[in-house]
Amino acid sequence: MNEFCSKVFRGDVRASARLMRLVDDRAEGYEEYMKEVWKHTGHAHIIGITGAPGAGKSTMTDKLIAKYRSMGKTVGVVAIDPTSPFSGGAILGDRIRMADHATDEGVFIRSVGTRGHLGGLSVSTMDIVAVMDAMGKDIVIIETVGVGQDEVEIAMVADTCIVVTVPGLGDDIQAIKAGIFEIADIFIVNKADREGVERTVKDLEIMLEMVHQRTTWNVEVLKTVASRDEGIDDVVNTVIKHAEFFDKNIKPKRMEDRLLHVAYGVVREKIVKEIFAEDEIRKLLQSGFDPYSAVEKLWEARQL
Amino acid sequence: MNEFCSKVFRGDVRASARLMRLVDDRAEGYEEYMKEVWKHTGHAHIIGITGAPGAGKSTMTDKLIAKYRSMGKTVGVVAIDPTSPFSGGAILGDRIRMADHATDEGVFIRSVGTRGHLGGLSVSTMDIVAVMDAMGKDIVIIETVGVGQDEVEIAMVADTCIVVTVPGLGDDIQAIKAGIFEIADIFIVNKADREGVERTVKDLEIMLEMVHQRTTWNVEVLKTVASRDEGIDDVVNTVIKHAEFFDKNIKPKRMEDRLLHVAYGVVREKIVKEIFAEDEIRKLLQSGFDPYSAVEKLWEARQL
Repeated sequence: MNEFCSKVFRGDVRASARLMRLVDDRAEGYEEYMKEVWKHTGHAHIIGITGAPGAGKSTMTDKLIAKYRSMGKTVGVVAIDPTSPFSGGAILGDRIRMADHATDEGVFIRSVGTRGHLGGLSVSTMDIVAVMDAMGKDIVIIETVGVGQDEVEIAMVADTCIVVTVPGLGDDIQAIKAGIFEIADIFIVNKADREGVERTVKDLEIMLEMVHQRTTWNVEVLKTVASRDEGIDDVVNTVIKHAEFFDKNIKPKRMEDRLLHVAYGVVREKIVKEIFAEDEIRKLLQSGFDPYSAVEKLWEARQL
Repeated sequence: MNEFCSKVFRGDVRASARLMRLVDDRAEGYEEYMKEVWKHTGHAHIIGITGAPGAGKSTMTDKLIAKYRSMGKTVGVVAIDPTSPFSGGAILGDRIRMADHATDEGVFIRSVGTRGHLGGLSVSTMDIVAVMDAMGKDIVIIETVGVGQDEVEIAMVADTCIVVTVPGLGDDIQAIKAGIFEIADIFIVNKADREGVERTVKDLEIMLEMVHQRTTWNVEVLKTVASRDEGIDDVVNTVIKHAEFFDKNIKPKRMEDRLLHVAYGVVREKIVKEIFAEDEIRKLLQSGFDPYSAVEKLWEARQL
């Protein structure tokens, strides 16, 4: 095996950081590294955190890191950062978040930009989760932006999917984002010191009874005040309970679906890179080609 | 030109219905028809209607049909039906909707199923909009499900994007679906006889001032009670005003982007059909391949 990859699998922070940068940049040769990496995945328990902006996802993530560290677990965090299509914002995000855990070798945080492409999470995001898994992190937390496309995919990529909401969103959330009731393994009503918390919990529980669940897991609705560390133990205990359920009942099938999902993403990327030359297609369209004829022409030129 | 396509371009209802079925089924030879169809697009003004379930999108669509018909305009409707991944529900949907306009040759309604694939609107949905355009409909309305993925794409496919909401959703909608403020050309607060309508209108207007708009169009917030036909004239007049703005300022660039978007969808479909054989990839993964190696193997086998 490649010496560079060996270092990553031993948890070397510098090598891992470098690999993640290569993977995020899609730099020359990253595919060969990723072949090794994907073979070394399946150890970490992957937690997806989604929910409306302002619900407190980042605070929740920070508190979960602290709690898991106190239990002796190592933690990786992949924070999806919508403000950084070209990584500028991501670096700033890393720095701010790193401050709390800067001296802790057991925590590895990385922001990734949403590339603004259609089709949800980018393959490079899934690759970076895989690197954290392969470098031996016990827990990998994916913190999403929570505005639309990514919720559906987070359910594919994470083992335990946590949806964070706040009091007062109860009644309307059901009309707006019915999909999240199908993907949530754990609901958290954060900022539970606010008025209306019981109503929100009840609304969520009613909705949960009404919608079809993906699994036979009994979705729990928990209350937290993350900023004051209240309820975090409950969250972690419920994640542990769900992890046991997941490993026993869901893991093999889900792992296969996940790899298929990654493979589809890899194909999609190869297409864009090797076949779908946007400039060429645009030129063909500009010269009067319809989309079907333009693609056919490109396809034939590539002798597919 | 193909005689079958000629019939469609003359607005023949039977031929058009048959073509849409072929396109929706991706039946043998549909690509050749679609090449002709896409060359004949660009006449219709395409209206996208999105919003939360229960906001009254269907009623709004029905009232808009009636209004446009009274103005002598022909109308096509593409209703995206989430309950019909395999078209079962779509047929029922068509029948119920058709009842009102069954004897009117100037109205053509078709439901399409959401195929549940990642990446939003399917190419076949965009193709069916194109067929309605090519058959000479003056107005084509796309009514979406409005739960997540499709809003972003509707902005790509429609000329005028209408977002329907109801009183009471004002305060929370901003936290949950900030994206719709960027895509809306017209906001409608439907069921405006309900309490809280002024507050909702005001909230929307404040939000609209805060977010970045795609164009220099001044987004309007309108009140309707669609079930009682109140405010529909206003909606249509605003759409007409936006159509003028669109044709003058946005159309050429948007048309090119739209065709590129369709072309990308066509490529994606060709991949799935001709390269990404799910069964093969799944078998490779099951026999221990990582996703990158599996794709590489398939890619090489196809001599790409």
